[in-house]
Amino acid sequence: MYIFTRLNRINEVKVKLFLRSILLFAVLINVVQAQNKAEKYVLVIHGGAGTIERGRMTAEQEQAYRDKLKEALQVGYDVIKQHGSALDAVEKTVRVLEDSPLFNAGKGAVFTHDGKNELDAAVMDGKTLSAGAVAGVTTLRNPISAARAVMEKSEHVLLAREGAEAFAKEVGLAIVDPSYFYTKERWDGLQRARQQDAKKQVNHATERLGGGIQDYKFGTVGCVALDDQGNLAAGTSTGGMTNKKFGRIGDAPIIGAGTYANNESVAVSCTGWGEFYIRNVVAYDIAALMEYKNLSVKEAAETSLAKVAKGGGNGGLIALDKEGNMAMPFNTSGMYRGAVTEEGVVEVEIYKD
Amino acid sequence: MYIFTRLNRINEVKVKLFLRSILLFAVLINVVQAQNKAEKYVLVIHGGAGTIERGRMTAEQEQAYRDKLKEALQVGYDVIKQHGSALDAVEKTVRVLEDSPLFNAGKGAVFTHDGKNELDAAVMDGKTLSAGAVAGVTTLRNPISAARAVMEKSEHVLLAREGAEAFAKEVGLAIVDPSYFYTKERWDGLQRARQQDAKKQVNHATERLGGGIQDYKFGTVGCVALDDQGNLAAGTSTGGMTNKKFGRIGDAPIIGAGTYANNESVAVSCTGWGEFYIRNVVAYDIAALMEYKNLSVKEAAETSLAKVAKGGGNGGLIALDKEGNMAMPFNTSGMYRGAVTEEGVVEVEIYKD
Repeated sequence: MYIFTRLNRINEVKVKLFLRSILLFAVLINVVQAQNKAEKYVLVIHGGAGTIERGRMTAEQEQAYRDKLKEALQVGYDVIKQHGSALDAVEKTVRVLEDSPLFNAGKGAVFTHDGKNELDAAVMDGKTLSAGAVAGVTTLRNPISAARAVMEKSEHVLLAREGAEAFAKEVGLAIVDPSYFYTKERWDGLQRARQQDAKKQVNHATERLGGGIQDYKFGTVGCVALDDQGNLAAGTSTGGMTNKKFGRIGDAPIIGAGTYANNESVAVSCTGWGEFYIRNVVAYDIAALMEYKNLSVKEAAETSLAKVAKGGGNGGLIALDKEGNMAMPFNTSGMYRGAVTEEGVVEVEIYKD
Repeated sequence: MYIFTRLNRINEVKVKLFLRSILLFAVLINVVQAQNKAEKYVLVIHGGAGTIERGRMTAEQEQAYRDKLKEALQVGYDVIKQHGSALDAVEKTVRVLEDSPLFNAGKGAVFTHDGKNELDAAVMDGKTLSAGAVAGVTTLRNPISAARAVMEKSEHVLLAREGAEAFAKEVGLAIVDPSYFYTKERWDGLQRARQQDAKKQVNHATERLGGGIQDYKFGTVGCVALDDQGNLAAGTSTGGMTNKKFGRIGDAPIIGAGTYANNESVAVSCTGWGEFYIRNVVAYDIAALMEYKNLSVKEAAETSLAKVAKGGGNGGLIALDKEGNMAMPFNTSGMYRGAVTEEGVVEVEIYKD
């Protein structure tokens, strides 16, 4: 009898332990699932990387940036929540940023050396690998929508300047007078850039040609999104560099450099010193590092950005993989950025620390 | 004694066999070395992929193409033989092809829908990863030299249209009247393209926008080179597509799409239906497949070209790796192409078979 009692007690203990283990396991699974869920992002945006430091903006200015970033994220999230496409979400989100004077894209575009606003934009559909872009347009209110029209309504990928504008007009996009893009802030920025150039007292023409790029690059807006069909999309829009000359085209409208999306890997939008992004084919390099070397989106994004830094460039980027993992590295003092999770949790940041 | 004789005879046979083996081995090593030597290429060019079929050219026309390809190869080879840089070799070689009316670049550029010649070119230095490009220029005799000037004399990578021309003028490049680019063959080509467009009787504007691309894409010239310092360089120059509209920019001036060079991997120049090369970031994809997946230059080039074909595009490319191995795949009926080995052996081909 003693032996039986003893065995029963042991069994009882074992059963209790077993049940407790199951309970603990279930709790752990819940925790892990909750963590995974919380980490799934559906939309990520940036409003440009650059010299953005605490104390250089008033509290009101900072709040205006945060509010606009949140508004843009909410617009894109609403599309995805209602089972819309990543492509629609990207276009609508970027339009919000283009229509704001706060960012260097659309309405808030910087001025070229000649006092014009020349806008670039690109969009890419990760499902079909189709892409569209416009470069150097001066009369299109929303370059991101023109980029999408190029993708969907022409057999081309990249249209430039007057040709791109003629195309946009033909397909019925909103045309504005170039004066629409005037903002006092950007105009003053050009005057400062010109003065800085003049101070340099450079000796011959060629030294002047790219003068002062370091100081005046700024801005660009971008968005990457993942919809509930598993489709990725990316879009970028910019006014380029203050004081830019000679019809310079940056990385934003270059597929593979500033913008790329592929359902097999990742959607990317870059911001920063465009020339370094072009030379390092940054957006596609991230996709290649993920697809060919099995790097995570964070590892790939950081590896590619390190190449930009190694070459002497700076900036940042946003990347979103097909699982909803995201990365938003930058090597400047700040980058306007934000993300929204599958549950609609909105996060917005500006500074590095 | 019999045993000794027997042993001696066996030894004698063994010694003879041994000596013969050594001789055979030495011969084999020589053969292998000779083969390896013969396989090391220092310069590869293309003069465009497309519908190039036997019997569509006269013997004289075909000979003219072969002669010009050989001349271009010889010019580039002379640079490398005299310890010049891969970059110099690429520029000089491409200039020969640009100055000939036979190819769709420089002098022989095709006409846009509006009856203009809008030229694109890019160059990249594999040693420094610096790059330069021009798009949509109408008055620069040698766009490849303008691309090099952008690389070396500005901080930009890509300049477009009037701006690029103003820059080229400022740095002293050869400016020509747009009429320099008139050739009867190309003008007639535009008229045929327009007629073909008209026959289609398409119903609304958007269907017309990219009309007939398949039939009129053609040409582009390119060169990749490896110098005796182990430096790679790539250059591409084109008049784009006959009948192109809306300021369309193809893959040639897009770093990573039509042109790429990196001493760590490969130099690439593409030709074909540009939009597919942009979407697939072909030139950089080849470099990534080699660097991240350890594919050979042949495997990488074929893998990337297969992506172009899968998407519905066609064309070809040339690629040269840091060891002097080359690939020149194409999926059209022909591609004007040629290569020169370290010993100065010149090879020129036109058709697939």
